[in-house]
Amino acid sequence: MCVMSLFPVAQAYHGSPDGTKRDVASPGANHSYSIIVNTTLRAAVIGYGRFGRFWAEWIAGEFTVQVASRRTLAGLPAGIRQVTLEEAATADLVFLTVPISAVRDTLQRLAPYLGPRTTVVDTCSVKVYPVTEMERILPADAGIIACHPMFGPDSALTRTDLLPVIIWPVRDRHQRYHGLREVFGRLRMRIVEMTPEEHDREAAFTQGITHLIGRLLAEMELQPSEIATLGYRRLLQVMEQTCNDPVQLFQDLQRYNGHTREMRRQFAQALERTARLLSDETLD
Amino acid sequence: MCVMSLFPVAQAYHGSPDGTKRDVASPGANHSYSIIVNTTLRAAVIGYGRFGRFWAEWIAGEFTVQVASRRTLAGLPAGIRQVTLEEAATADLVFLTVPISAVRDTLQRLAPYLGPRTTVVDTCSVKVYPVTEMERILPADAGIIACHPMFGPDSALTRTDLLPVIIWPVRDRHQRYHGLREVFGRLRMRIVEMTPEEHDREAAFTQGITHLIGRLLAEMELQPSEIATLGYRRLLQVMEQTCNDPVQLFQDLQRYNGHTREMRRQFAQALERTARLLSDETLD
Repeated sequence: MCVMSLFPVAQAYHGSPDGTKRDVASPGANHSYSIIVNTTLRAAVIGYGRFGRFWAEWIAGEFTVQVASRRTLAGLPAGIRQVTLEEAATADLVFLTVPISAVRDTLQRLAPYLGPRTTVVDTCSVKVYPVTEMERILPADAGIIACHPMFGPDSALTRTDLLPVIIWPVRDRHQRYHGLREVFGRLRMRIVEMTPEEHDREAAFTQGITHLIGRLLAEMELQPSEIATLGYRRLLQVMEQTCNDPVQLFQDLQRYNGHTREMRRQFAQALERTARLLSDETLD
Repeated sequence: MCVMSLFPVAQAYHGSPDGTKRDVASPGANHSYSIIVNTTLRAAVIGYGRFGRFWAEWIAGEFTVQVASRRTLAGLPAGIRQVTLEEAATADLVFLTVPISAVRDTLQRLAPYLGPRTTVVDTCSVKVYPVTEMERILPADAGIIACHPMFGPDSALTRTDLLPVIIWPVRDRHQRYHGLREVFGRLRMRIVEMTPEEHDREAAFTQGITHLIGRLLAEMELQPSEIATLGYRRLLQVMEQTCNDPVQLFQDLQRYNGHTREMRRQFAQALERTARLLSDETLD
């Protein structure tokens, strides 16, 4: 786990509790120098479902990664170790990769054990709800960063461009925000800074509608076809990719984002207008 | 317009009325020989909308292409000439590229002038309806081939694989079917033989649902987003591509295909089941 990290000193880098050793190679200003760390920051990933597993491996080159799960995990990748929730709670960065609907309970279990220099970073597909809960439940000295990687196990492999990630420094007590942005930059991500409220509005009308359409097509049980048009093949891809994610993600996206109700209202209205294009015919 | 054509002699090639000259290079069996023609068959494209224009250019290397339209056409590509409907009616192959809803009227105007060795090939996105109309309206000695290229101006440029085309010899009076298949093969198409009934069922649940979703998304006025997921970007592509086609295509697809009503019924039921996944919430 010896990797090169780029954390600007100006961001008051504190080192990690496990004794990170650093050499400042060149003390210039404006991110123009690098710091060699023998041991990287410790990052704990809480929840080891489909996304958690992907995320733990995705960031493994940049942090010493630990994972916490209620289940006993077998066959973890080399260098990734399972720890208790108590131990995970003292990491430099605690990434929450539990389902949105499990965030509150997880925070309540995590809060009593949280290290004094720990920053909690959620990765939920909605932002206002988990941010509100983190601010309410976590101790005052906990750092809080909101984060939503707009990609997952499927699209990370398929996309060839930079992968968008939304990030917002809710309460950057331990100055991890800028370092995290740099790490993400190295991990093929394109940083988009957006408030939780802005995120939820935009995500409802992008990711939210996509999952709605994907589930709808799956319910229709669409099949591959020898005569598939290009457009139909794209719909099948949307269906397959969406339904690789657990149905709980779909449900949570629709329930915990205050804007998806409006998205679904507009969807229903658009359906009516579309039906009207067929004049005397209706869609049911 | 001097091109190499591969028309198997076994298919009783009749030559074209404009004096096609052929040399049989090698009279072997099973399509293993070729015929050099100095002048290719004459193909007329009736209707010069978005698809007709694309189609006339797509086939221009294989035929002497004429186009007929009610409008006076300016800026035609080199080698493509506008002719009257009467002249078009005597071509070896008459491709109908008018809207589905204009097929009946076009056939009625065409029928009195149809050449004795002319084969009419429709290109409609539904098949049972135009085939029924062609059989009913065209004279008994007219050849009839049903054809549906499952691609258009947008997807032909985007797809890198072979482009599917459905073809069916409804009444191959003048033995044009096998030659046409070979021409299509040279034009990057993948031949799928399917009865009009089979086509309509399959197309309703592939092309039909794609256009329904595309129009629906357009009615929602979805916008590009900085935080677009891969799935959302695919939906935007479906929306843009679908809505590049005239709204009449969408309407005709839904009205003239006997299976789209069932597709829309299944769509509505799937929407209800999807809403139920959100338990106490509904989609409106």
